[in-house]
Amino acid sequence: MATIKDIANRLGVSVSTVSKGLNGASDISEQLRQTVLDTAVEMGYTPKQMRARDTGKLCIFIENMEYETAEQFGYDIILGFKQAAYPARYDVTVMPITPAFQKAEKYDTFMLKNGYVGAFLVGFALQDAWLEQLHTTSIPTTLFDNYIRKNPNVSYIGTDSFEGIDDAIEHLIALGHRKIALLNGSAHSMITEQRRQAYIDSMSAHNLEVSEKWMPYSYYVAAAAKDHVAGLLSLGATAIVCGNDLLASGALHECLANGYRVPEDVSIIGFDDIPISAQLNPPLTTIRQDRIELGKCGFFTLHSVINHVSVSKNLLRPQLIIRNSTAPVRK
Amino acid sequence: MATIKDIANRLGVSVSTVSKGLNGASDISEQLRQTVLDTAVEMGYTPKQMRARDTGKLCIFIENMEYETAEQFGYDIILGFKQAAYPARYDVTVMPITPAFQKAEKYDTFMLKNGYVGAFLVGFALQDAWLEQLHTTSIPTTLFDNYIRKNPNVSYIGTDSFEGIDDAIEHLIALGHRKIALLNGSAHSMITEQRRQAYIDSMSAHNLEVSEKWMPYSYYVAAAAKDHVAGLLSLGATAIVCGNDLLASGALHECLANGYRVPEDVSIIGFDDIPISAQLNPPLTTIRQDRIELGKCGFFTLHSVINHVSVSKNLLRPQLIIRNSTAPVRK
Repeated sequence: MATIKDIANRLGVSVSTVSKGLNGASDISEQLRQTVLDTAVEMGYTPKQMRARDTGKLCIFIENMEYETAEQFGYDIILGFKQAAYPARYDVTVMPITPAFQKAEKYDTFMLKNGYVGAFLVGFALQDAWLEQLHTTSIPTTLFDNYIRKNPNVSYIGTDSFEGIDDAIEHLIALGHRKIALLNGSAHSMITEQRRQAYIDSMSAHNLEVSEKWMPYSYYVAAAAKDHVAGLLSLGATAIVCGNDLLASGALHECLANGYRVPEDVSIIGFDDIPISAQLNPPLTTIRQDRIELGKCGFFTLHSVINHVSVSKNLLRPQLIIRNSTAPVRK
Repeated sequence: MATIKDIANRLGVSVSTVSKGLNGASDISEQLRQTVLDTAVEMGYTPKQMRARDTGKLCIFIENMEYETAEQFGYDIILGFKQAAYPARYDVTVMPITPAFQKAEKYDTFMLKNGYVGAFLVGFALQDAWLEQLHTTSIPTTLFDNYIRKNPNVSYIGTDSFEGIDDAIEHLIALGHRKIALLNGSAHSMITEQRRQAYIDSMSAHNLEVSEKWMPYSYYVAAAAKDHVAGLLSLGATAIVCGNDLLASGALHECLANGYRVPEDVSIIGFDDIPISAQLNPPLTTIRQDRIELGKCGFFTLHSVINHVSVSKNLLRPQLIIRNSTAPVRK
């Protein structure tokens, strides 16, 4: 393991200069400080106080997701993470983050200079600067709903879409449905592609027809249903599985607007079970992601990676919550 | 949570009879004892001393796998599990098990009467009696290389076959190979099917032809290579990815027996990286499953399930170990 002296030798500067760079002292230039940090990361330097403890500081970085109040999607994820991390004697910082911040600060050096031993990243987009840097990071990192190939320091957690979609389709088949559509979310998202493949696999396994026009992409917002629901109904769909609950709430509205009753004429299933889903009219049947569990799983997985267990994917069980937006197919 | 009194009321017997049944006292009949245990399991009873502790006794059940000495496949899996479990203050018992034992003892009642709070099952076969019972068990259970659908108390851990096979095929493609076969293991095994699908996905993603005759099933033993290698060579295969290292060692032998040199004429890749693989002639390029990590992952996952985090699948990163059985394709 590299020491401060090793870094000083490599850079041809004094030990105290390296120490200043690592500790954020004000009397060295920002450029030299960055060089010290970059070199420290490259050489695998870990601060002594961090080496001496068996636990340490973790950071949850959160982007594109509300988390401040209990009805928001991210709230329980953070709560679950903390519930699992505190008994294991970790400190947890929550930091909302922007694309601009990621461009200004390198991930590894930001982690090192703040003394974080690992991070949980929630809500990041594929084009984010830090996601690109995760291909080579040496910092234990766990991602919610994003997957980085091959780097043993990075792991992906989420809900098992394949099991969830299959549960939904089996429920619909048991109700007599055969013409089942998938109103999916945004293209070019890993989760969207996963749910699409899960739909194809499940429909095929049940000997039901699959074709492109039955599984349109849209967006993960209620308004996006407007462009697709009438088309799916005109194809004869008796049931629509939606990429998330917001899209499902839009689909409910569009069915009514097109003169179809839910669930008498059309069954609708969502994904996520956000708090509002039970309050919709009719209350939504949906595939629940348990967000407290997701947060705990984020911690347990990060803790595994910190302990040199290179988790690739850790997926939780979804749970089909049957409410009133699904019913037997109309004769 | 059910108490001893609840069980007594349900069965119409005294509290002391229930207590005797749960504690293995000799002065009640075996039949009544089984009824007490069955009812306790059904009602979700947990012994008080178990409720009061935050950790407890775990059992590793092992079948169809050698584990007594360091060069055997199971040894490091058990070692890794214990390395992760002891710091978390769990006791770990290792119990080899047979199909006959599983028929004689129900899984849930065996766990309850021995006071185990969770189990890690290694090497079980699909037709084992306990695997069937896992569909409904209420005991936190983690399986190595077996998957039970839908029961939130049961999780599956293993190595990510998709990433491993893809690494192998990318390595071969970089060496100029295009005619790549998969000599797979036993049909009707979850892992065999996973590796087959991984091969199909990876070949397709690289625009290489996939057909049935290029991916025969065989068995996970060296001798099974004899029935297939000559056929694959006559099809023009320049590289053979094998279902495990034993099969790869057989394939090495068969190539030589058919007048083909490895790696000059044919490249061979195994799966597992068992200790003998580095000693083969030539030393085997293979997809490593890190067995210490698998054991630790088994514990971390079981610990998650005990903490009500319903893990479906927790997959580790494989690592391609490049030795001398692969080389550039012959011109």
